[in-house]
Amino acid sequence: MVGGGEGAFIGAVHRIAARMDGQFQLIAGALSGDPARARASAEALGLARSYDDWAAMAKAEAARPDGIEAVAIVTPNHLHAGPAAAFLASGIHVICDKPLAATEEGARQIAEAAGASDARFFLTHNYAAYPMIREARAIMAEGGIGDLRLVQVEYLQDWLASDPGSKQSEWRLDPARAGAGALGDIGTHAWQLAAFVTGQYPSQIAAEVSALVPGRAVDDDARVALRYAGGARGGIWVSQVATGCENRLSLRLYGSTGGLEWSHEVPDRLIRTHLGQPSQILTRAQDRSASSRTPPGHPEGYLEAFANLYSDIAAVIRGDSTPAARLPGLADGLSGMEFIAAARRSSEAGGAWVATGTGTAT
Amino acid sequence: MVGGGEGAFIGAVHRIAARMDGQFQLIAGALSGDPARARASAEALGLARSYDDWAAMAKAEAARPDGIEAVAIVTPNHLHAGPAAAFLASGIHVICDKPLAATEEGARQIAEAAGASDARFFLTHNYAAYPMIREARAIMAEGGIGDLRLVQVEYLQDWLASDPGSKQSEWRLDPARAGAGALGDIGTHAWQLAAFVTGQYPSQIAAEVSALVPGRAVDDDARVALRYAGGARGGIWVSQVATGCENRLSLRLYGSTGGLEWSHEVPDRLIRTHLGQPSQILTRAQDRSASSRTPPGHPEGYLEAFANLYSDIAAVIRGDSTPAARLPGLADGLSGMEFIAAARRSSEAGGAWVATGTGTAT
Amino acid sequence: MVGGGEGAFIGAVHRIAARMDGQFQLIAGALSGDPARARASAEALGLARSYDDWAAMAKAEAARPDGIEAVAIVTPNHLHAGPAAAFLASGIHVICDKPLAATEEGARQIAEAAGASDARFFLTHNYAAYPMIREARAIMAEGGIGDLRLVQVEYLQDWLASDPGSKQSEWRLDPARAGAGALGDIGTHAWQLAAFVTGQYPSQIAAEVSALVPGRAVDDDARVALRYAGGARGGIWVSQVATGCENRLSLRLYGSTGGLEWSHEVPDRLIRTHLGQPSQILTRAQDRSASSRTPPGHPEGYLEAFANLYSDIAAVIRGDSTPAARLPGLADGLSGMEFIAAARRSSEAGGAWVATGTGTAT
Amino acid sequence: MVGGGEGAFIGAVHRIAARMDGQFQLIAGALSGDPARARASAEALGLARSYDDWAAMAKAEAARPDGIEAVAIVTPNHLHAGPAAAFLASGIHVICDKPLAATEEGARQIAEAAGASDARFFLTHNYAAYPMIREARAIMAEGGIGDLRLVQVEYLQDWLASDPGSKQSEWRLDPARAGAGALGDIGTHAWQLAAFVTGQYPSQIAAEVSALVPGRAVDDDARVALRYAGGARGGIWVSQVATGCENRLSLRLYGSTGGLEWSHEVPDRLIRTHLGQPSQILTRAQDRSASSRTPPGHPEGYLEAFANLYSDIAAVIRGDSTPAARLPGLADGLSGMEFIAAARRSSEAGGAWVATGTGTAT
Repeated sequence: MVGGGEGAFIGAVHRIAARMDGQFQLIAGALSGDPARARASAEALGLARSYDDWAAMAKAEAARPDGIEAVAIVTPNHLHAGPAAAFLASGIHVICDKPLAATEEGARQIAEAAGASDARFFLTHNYAAYPMIREARAIMAEGGIGDLRLVQVEYLQDWLASDPGSKQSEWRLDPARAGAGALGDIGTHAWQLAAFVTGQYPSQIAAEVSALVPGRAVDDDARVALRYAGGARGGIWVSQVATGCENRLSLRLYGSTGGLEWSHEVPDRLIRTHLGQPSQILTRAQDRSASSRTPPGHPEGYLEAFANLYSDIAAVIRGDSTPAARLPGLADGLSGMEFIAAARRSSEAGGAWVATGTGTAT
Repeated sequence: MVGGGEGAFIGAVHRIAARMDGQFQLIAGALSGDPARARASAEALGLARSYDDWAAMAKAEAARPDGIEAVAIVTPNHLHAGPAAAFLASGIHVICDKPLAATEEGARQIAEAAGASDARFFLTHNYAAYPMIREARAIMAEGGIGDLRLVQVEYLQDWLASDPGSKQSEWRLDPARAGAGALGDIGTHAWQLAAFVTGQYPSQIAAEVSALVPGRAVDDDARVALRYAGGARGGIWVSQVATGCENRLSLRLYGSTGGLEWSHEVPDRLIRTHLGQPSQILTRAQDRSASSRTPPGHPEGYLEAFANLYSDIAAVIRGDSTPAARLPGLADGLSGMEFIAAARRSSEAGGAWVATGTGTAT
Repeated sequence: MVGGGEGAFIGAVHRIAARMDGQFQLIAGALSGDPARARASAEALGLARSYDDWAAMAKAEAARPDGIEAVAIVTPNHLHAGPAAAFLASGIHVICDKPLAATEEGARQIAEAAGASDARFFLTHNYAAYPMIREARAIMAEGGIGDLRLVQVEYLQDWLASDPGSKQSEWRLDPARAGAGALGDIGTHAWQLAAFVTGQYPSQIAAEVSALVPGRAVDDDARVALRYAGGARGGIWVSQVATGCENRLSLRLYGSTGGLEWSHEVPDRLIRTHLGQPSQILTRAQDRSASSRTPPGHPEGYLEAFANLYSDIAAVIRGDSTPAARLPGLADGLSGMEFIAAARRSSEAGGAWVATGTGTAT
Repeated sequence: MVGGGEGAFIGAVHRIAARMDGQFQLIAGALSGDPARARASAEALGLARSYDDWAAMAKAEAARPDGIEAVAIVTPNHLHAGPAAAFLASGIHVICDKPLAATEEGARQIAEAAGASDARFFLTHNYAAYPMIREARAIMAEGGIGDLRLVQVEYLQDWLASDPGSKQSEWRLDPARAGAGALGDIGTHAWQLAAFVTGQYPSQIAAEVSALVPGRAVDDDARVALRYAGGARGGIWVSQVATGCENRLSLRLYGSTGGLEWSHEVPDRLIRTHLGQPSQILTRAQDRSASSRTPPGHPEGYLEAFANLYSDIAAVIRGDSTPAARLPGLADGLSGMEFIAAARRSSEAGGAWVATGTGTAT
């Protein structure tokens, strides 16, 4: 693991997710850019091998016969590209947190390293791993709502409604390290989720990107209108200043014959609508993806969805290609970068419609 | 009453609302443009006086010593202006369904007639009469959420996801009679509701207005980005093709210290958020507007809110000016027309930001 | 109307309900036992004829050629029997609030008067008039959940968690005037609702009846276990001290193949479960009883359900026997009295199972 | 681990829960009574040491210097007592699934073994480990709802509405192996949960215990009335035939000044009511027990709550006595057995009130 030392949030999530199904063991890490903190964190976690920096780690682990097979990169955004490229170059699989990078140059660096390596690159768009999101994707794939007409994704938080002054907020509010604000932190999740479930990206977007907290250097609210090639319309709204919304992600799709509604607040449930007929409440009892560890009615949540990614990643690394199709990777990361850039371009042009790279989603 | 004959929907709503508190009596009507249907409808309702056309009705009622005091105009949009102007000219108060008119010319005609008359003009934006919406307005007026940052109104229906071929849909899908589609039918409600609660209109909007059902001549979906003079951002999304949404109106406001969330699906409830503190569930027990007929816990709904308008209108007609401030009227109607026009202008200009007439709301 | 003067609650509800569909006109009343208050209340309501007492009213109205056709009795429980018997004896239809009476003797008096009169007796168990309750009954009648196994009705309020000292609470906390506490006030509603939907009464019950607020002379909480002749089991829980529950009535039925769940908090919705299949959300769009005044998605509530009773009563009085089968009447009232008595008997015998008069419900 | 071989449910839950925080390692097991299945299961899980029977395992592990520190017993109920007693006698801590045993004799056997051993005995009443349940307990401990008046616990499932014919159902429907049906399987959870949060057990109960599926040898539905020494009243309703309820556990407490409502369907949320004031929605942001792995808004569920038990158990085993007070153990198990016995006694006596061993809860 690179990053994830004391005070970090997502590193602990990755560790639990990796451990949940017993298919990964945490062996080595460069847990912090600060060597003292890196060592202290490694000791607290009982790590076998602690490194002071990721470059040394990539080199040393590649050289060991018992070197790590995969590395999780859970650093701030501006520190994704360097380690990702280094580990890929060393033939070690990379599991990288989103967004892909802080800059387009960083993204390119990763893309080139991935192209030149046999090792695989995974991006932890964890929301796409919820059982009911997988079921929603299956329903869409079989044309379950008729012609797609409307796509709406919201991702609302309030933890940046004021400045919490935490380790989490500090780098996220710094353009140099975060690259983007809400657009990158949660906007890329929304963008990927819509594409994952519908199987397509919008062809054009128009955006209004704002920093609503006075004095803030990065965006904290963005509303993006979407046009799909097939004529569907949609919207993405992400905000980190929606007071009272802890982590409210939701997805709504409406088609000519039905619809799907999912909210992260009750992630085990998917509402399926049918024009002129009663709506249905689908639960994991109806999920065909076999992504659950407990029976329906035993709430599974964020960590389980994250662990679903890790389980699939383990399977792919072992050679099972089946789950590969539902695992987010480089293409998703590049599309996310493009989304950030396009949203900014549109917003700066007064909300003009701008083209995105269309195409089929993962 | 003008309009509201057999097969109509909103006419019956107006009649129940007017009757609920026993302050109006239905005496006379020109219930349909088709004289035979007008008479049959009048007979079915036990009307004392039935007219074949509204012009004759306005003249005759104005001449009678026991003529009507107020008229409800519940015709399709293109038939608001004529009767409204005629009754206003006859000194009879007008209670008109929204939107104000089908065309800007019709709107002007009403505005001129209202300016020249001592009679009053009311517009039935009924959603603004829900007790918890009135309470939300009171909370906003006292600065209850801090600085306003985000405004989001959704109004989603699905009854036009296919063409029902009903009397209701027939004129609404005809540009000549409806003027606008979803923008006019439900968009003006969303626009007025946001202004009613926040006390302000957006200064600029950018819109994407679409007709998603193939071959449709009027818009059935619109997403509108909002900019407020004070820096707040917002969105209105209205759709009549959101499959599975029967009549889903919702309002969300987020400020620097708190927020408010209201959904028409459970209209007796208002969620009030407080940054860093638990959210609260407000019910009519907390409403200070005294707009209820039953104690909290006894669900009140659409008809009761509509009747709140009629009760206030009766009070105003009798000379009590207190409720006037919360009654929608000509200014709301004109602003709604401006909203429709601005949204179209923006959408036709590729979603460019366009100015709206800013100003304080009702 | 008898009762319903200033300060009363349910009288105003009856008046709105009666007025909503324009099929009743309030002509005469003995609105209070206090003549001065009766007159003042009558004047405030614009009543044509005000009486100082109900006996005089029954006599005078029966004698007039334009006398009232029906009377609504909305007095405290101990004042049901006298007026009901008098009006029935005068040939005037009686619409009486529940419970039937404060005492078994009062109930007998009404039953005898009803047996001797051609006039009809209606009891306003208004919850049975909700569209989705009628739909639930239709589903049960067609065997929609398989063999009935479980019945659960809850009716929870909190307005007597402390003593509000209101006109409403004053007589309800007095055993002499109320007869029973929660058992009579809301328990009879729960009892009737279960029977209305399932079509059957339990054959045996076992009860724990309590007064939980110190010093209270009537029960404020009761939990009653139910045994049905066919083997089903059930429970009724009513409480007026469930802090935070404003008026929370709910019904749940589970059978061998499906179930039904309804909550008064969102009365337009009925959850229908199917063993091994997704649950469905039924709305008024699925109601086959044609009991709505507005389309689905436009919330209807307590007053509309009450008005459904009045509309059906008007139809029955005019000679249409169709709605009679779903209108609560004397049999429901007598069964409610029996429920109160049986629950007390059981509770006093330490929760022993006691027989109730079994039989088919209304 | 004893039990938990192929086809088992709760064994896998224990394994994930133990692994989640990285504080346990699964070393040895007697995973099935069938030696071949035991070996195959052990191999699939990569166990270091597999035993054909638990007696041999207890003896061998106790003898090894690197023997296990603790054992999880996840067998059917009739196979709790033997292994628990054996491992306790060997000085190995026991983590046992509920209910304590299938018979009172089994319970006594465990109690005696625990009394004679220095090793500790833990019972996995996992629902008591939800953060919001711990917060509810804290609120109760500080008198947050005033005088307790009402306690209601429901635990409704439908997986035995018909006979699924699974490994899970097979032993649970066999009185010899399960001891009790719904009473033991989920009733003991409900009983423990109420006691955990309120800090007290009822002093008397009256029960109706039923087998509603024709031909069933164990109970599948039970409704139990509760009397508390302080005057409060309550109810427990458990059912495994509530069609459509997947695993619906809920807790409601009402006191003289407030109340608490929790539902397992959205376990991260606790509704706190205040008489005469708005209700509050508490989330993990308000939980003071530090029992979360993710920030509020990132749903945690069943596995996380289970893992909370394991983390606390690890801490206690290491010598930290702080979490001991909130860990269910022998006393809870004995009380659960008493609950089963008392409920049956009452039901067989026609629902008579019977005394339970009163006392303070864990």
